This record gives sequence, C-alpha cells and structure tokens, in this order.
Amino acid sequence: MKTDYIYELKMKVRDYECDSQGIVNNANYQHYTEHTRHEFLESRGIKFSTLQEQGIVPVVARIVLEYKTSLKGGDMFYSRLNVKKEGIRYIFQQDIYRAEDEKLCVKAVVECVCIVNGRLKTHEIFDKILIPNS
Amino acid sequence: MKTDYIYELKMKVRDYECDSQGIVNNANYQHYTEHTRHEFLESRGIKFSTLQEQGIVPVVARIVLEYKTSLKGGDMFYSRLNVKKEGIRYIFQQDIYRAEDEKLCVKAVVECVCIVNGRLKTHEIFDKILIPNS
Amino acid sequence: MKTDYIYELKMKVRDYECDSQGIVNNANYQHYTEHTRHEFLESRGIKFSTLQEQGIVPVVARIVLEYKTSLKGGDMFYSRLNVKKEGIRYIFQQDIYRAEDEKLCVKAVVECVCIVNGRLKTHEIFDKILIPNS
Amino acid sequence: MKTDYIYELKMKVRDYECDSQGIVNNANYQHYTEHTRHEFLESRGIKFSTLQEQGIVPVVARIVLEYKTSLKGGDMFYSRLNVKKEGIRYIFQQDIYRAEDEKLCVKAVVECVCIVNGRLKTHEIFDKILIPNS
Repeated sequence: MKTDYIYELKMKVRDYECDSQGIVNNANYQHYTEHTRHEFLESRGIKFSTLQEQGIVPVVARIVLEYKTSLKGGDMFYSRLNVKKEGIRYIFQQDIYRAEDEKLCVKAVVECVCIVNGRLKTHEIFDKILIPNS
Repeated sequence: MKTDYIYELKMKVRDYECDSQGIVNNANYQHYTEHTRHEFLESRGIKFSTLQEQGIVPVVARIVLEYKTSLKGGDMFYSRLNVKKEGIRYIFQQDIYRAEDEKLCVKAVVECVCIVNGRLKTHEIFDKILIPNS
Repeated sequence: MKTDYIYELKMKVRDYECDSQGIVNNANYQHYTEHTRHEFLESRGIKFSTLQEQGIVPVVARIVLEYKTSLKGGDMFYSRLNVKKEGIRYIFQQDIYRAEDEKLCVKAVVECVCIVNGRLKTHEIFDKILIPNS
Repeated sequence: MKTDYIYELKMKVRDYECDSQGIVNNANYQHYTEHTRHEFLESRGIKFSTLQEQGIVPVVARIVLEYKTSLKGGDMFYSRLNVKKEGIRYIFQQDIYRAEDEKLCVKAVVECVCIVNGRLKTHEIFDKILIPNS
C-alpha cells in the first residue's frame, strides 16, 4: 500500500456496474467509496449497523469526486483511504487506483458528520477511526 | 390500457439503467416491477412505508422473469399489472411493453406473501389490493 | 419553476433507491442528476445515444454534491438545472428540492467536458445546450 | 464447497445493496448471480467483454428466483453455480448460501442463450463452460 493511506481495499469491477459507454458509471464510484468507508470502520471494530442501533448515524455532508481515468468491466482496483478531523467533520480522502498500473482513477474527498440521537456532534466510538493502528 | 390489466405505469428508461450491451440490465426490470407494485399499492391507498410501520411486511417469495425484447436508453414503456390471491400468496402478473410499438419486453410473475408481526399470514389492509376499482 | 433555472424535472423517489437508513442512498442523487442532464439534453433536441454514435462523448470531470435534507421513499422532488461554459468545461448547477415544501435537498455542481473522436474539445452540437429556449 | 456445484464465489453484502427493510433488495440477488456467472466464465478462460467483441452475446432468456432467507449488510455468502445444456439453452442453477450457517438464501435457475452475430445459436467457445475442470 502507498504510505500516505491508512486503509486499502482491493476490489473488482462487476460488469453490471458499467453503463452503455462500457465503463463504470460515475455514481458507482460513490458506492465504492461508501463500501470502503464501511469496511474501514469494520477494520477498526465498528460495524455500521451497530452504530445505527446505538443512535449514532454517520452522514455524508459533502462529497467531491474528480474523475481521472475510467475503469472497465473486470478491472481490479485499489480503493484507498485516509481520514482526519476538522471541527465536527471527519474528512475522508478516498482515492481509487487501477491495480494493473497504479493509475489514479478517481480522487474523492468525503466530509462526514455524526448525528447522535438526532443531534449533530462527535462521539468517542466514532473517534476510534482516528487512532492509528499499531 | 389493455383490458386484462388493472394497473399500468408509464415509465422511461434512464441511461444509467443500461449496461455495456447498451440495453437495460436484467436486474433493473425487477426494480421496475417492484416500483410498479408500490405505485399500484399507493393507487389503492396503501403506502409501503406505512405498511412497514404497522408491522405488515410484504415480501417476494418467488419471481419468474421472461425476457422477450430489450429496452434501450430513453425508451418509454408501460409496466402493467394484475393480481390474484392463491392461499396466502398474492400472485402479481407484471408485464412490460415498449410504448412505441406495444412489443412485449418482459413477462414477470411475482409471488408475494405478507409477514404480519413476524408471522406469515394475510391481512385485510393488504387484501384491499384485490378489490376492483369502481 | 424558480426563475434561476433553465430546466426542471419532476421525479418521485422509488423505494428501492432508499437504503437501510430509510432514505435515498447518496449515490442515487448522482443518478438523479445524470438523468436530469440527459432529459435536459433531449429537451434541446440532443439524444445521448445519438451523441455517442457521432463520436461525441460528454464526460463528467468533477462533481461536488452537498447533502442538505434527505428524501424518503415516495417523496416527490424537483431536479433543477442551470448551465454555463467556462473554457472547454460545461458547468451544470443542479439542485434537488423536495416538492412538498420546496426544501433544498442536494446542491450539485457537475463539470463536464466533451471528448470528440478521442480528443477533448467543444462541439457546436453540444453548445446548443447553452442557447436559451425562446 | 458442496459437491454438487462446479463453481463458487465468496462475496460480502455491501450496505448500499440493502433497502429500507435493512435487507438486501431482491433485485441485487440477480446482480450477484450475474456477477457469479461472469466470474465463472472467466475461471474457464472466457472474458465477457471479449465475447461481446467476437459477436457472441450470451443473454438471459428466463430467470426464476426463490427467496428463502434474507441477507443483511455485512453478511458473507457463497454464490454457487452449476450448468447444463438443454437444446440451445444453457441452464444455470445458482444458489446463494449465508456463509455463517450455510443457510440457503436464494435459489435461482437462469436460462441463457447465445446470440452469435445476431442469430440464436450455440458456439464452441461458449460450450467450454460445460467441460468439467480437471
């Protein structure tokens, strides 16, 4: 893994994720980044469904996606992630690279906030994601 | 509307519903039939989310889809529906026709059951769907 | 329609577009904006599939989505659009409002470029989208 | 792997594949079965996109899905497959089991045909899928 990410997930494009241009439909990259965040949470011992049961709802407030290179059906890719906290926002930097040649496909910045029992605030359970793995 | 259906919904293929073959991906027809059933329920005064809140959960037990003609991006189509009851099963006949030439695209038979507070049974609220509109 | 948009499309949330939080999944708003752009093009006499056949491929280079209010299953909404040109980029401002109360749900800025026969450039056919309807 | 299948793929439910009932939306199982067939083809040296380039288009003519047990977000599952030929139809038996307890979730029978240069027929390249691995 490149050194400036704290998590990566290897995935493969499924043919049904491609549209009539024969490439992955733009919205599906957002699905990839969501799935990567949830897998990252799980790697830190946080299950998304458990959070919801505890009244902690992480929501995306803003997302910026830059499309650089298209992925095609069957392509393997790495979905990599970094996270930092700014105020009550958790800023995820999420980049997708084609596995074959490490070409950057999509650069995403995803700003999340936590809604705890209906109110916007941070929560120690969620802050566990910020502690580096040892 | 053809006389042997009790409900129809006119829809248009969205480009993102097509896959790399340039035609609607097979699984999306299942989405179309689901949306049509929910719209049909609503036309009978039943809102899907309200059912859920009352502990009445309609679930699909079995679906048969026959693919006849493919729809392409931008195609208009009619999604038509009929329903009958067999035991505790509600059998929906759902057929999709291309609007342009009334060509049959997909024939679906969808068997639903109701789970009421965790148990499989019929419910009078849901049975309203069987009463013909006057 | 509010006066600062040149196109609007009325749509309804389909239940399958909602995720386990009971609200529209974030990525689906991107689908809504894509569908709206294609419908807008069509309203200007440009069919997306025809563009592709002529070797003109509009691609999204960058998208910014701000999530304000969530839509739920069955909600009606307006997907509104404006467009301007900056260099070779077509900048779409696309905002989604809940129909019931005109509450802003999602603000999107979508930057598109045209690839004509493999090269990045503008094309008079595509520039038709900039000419106001009379 | 259970002995009566010739191929299996281990997968994990992604949260965005679940709907407001908190379980995998019915249509997504069809996506799972499609992806499994394409991965199976690839395991036999057949790439779906290559088939398309050669004018060989496998299409689903009919699908029967029986829903037994629902999968939830994060569930691991096995998507297993068998195939036989009946006339010009390739009949895929595709069953989905929850990994945790081997509980049967979905039973699918998918009937495919091949369209070769616009005509319905079998093709030796595609028939490779019928030869057992040694």
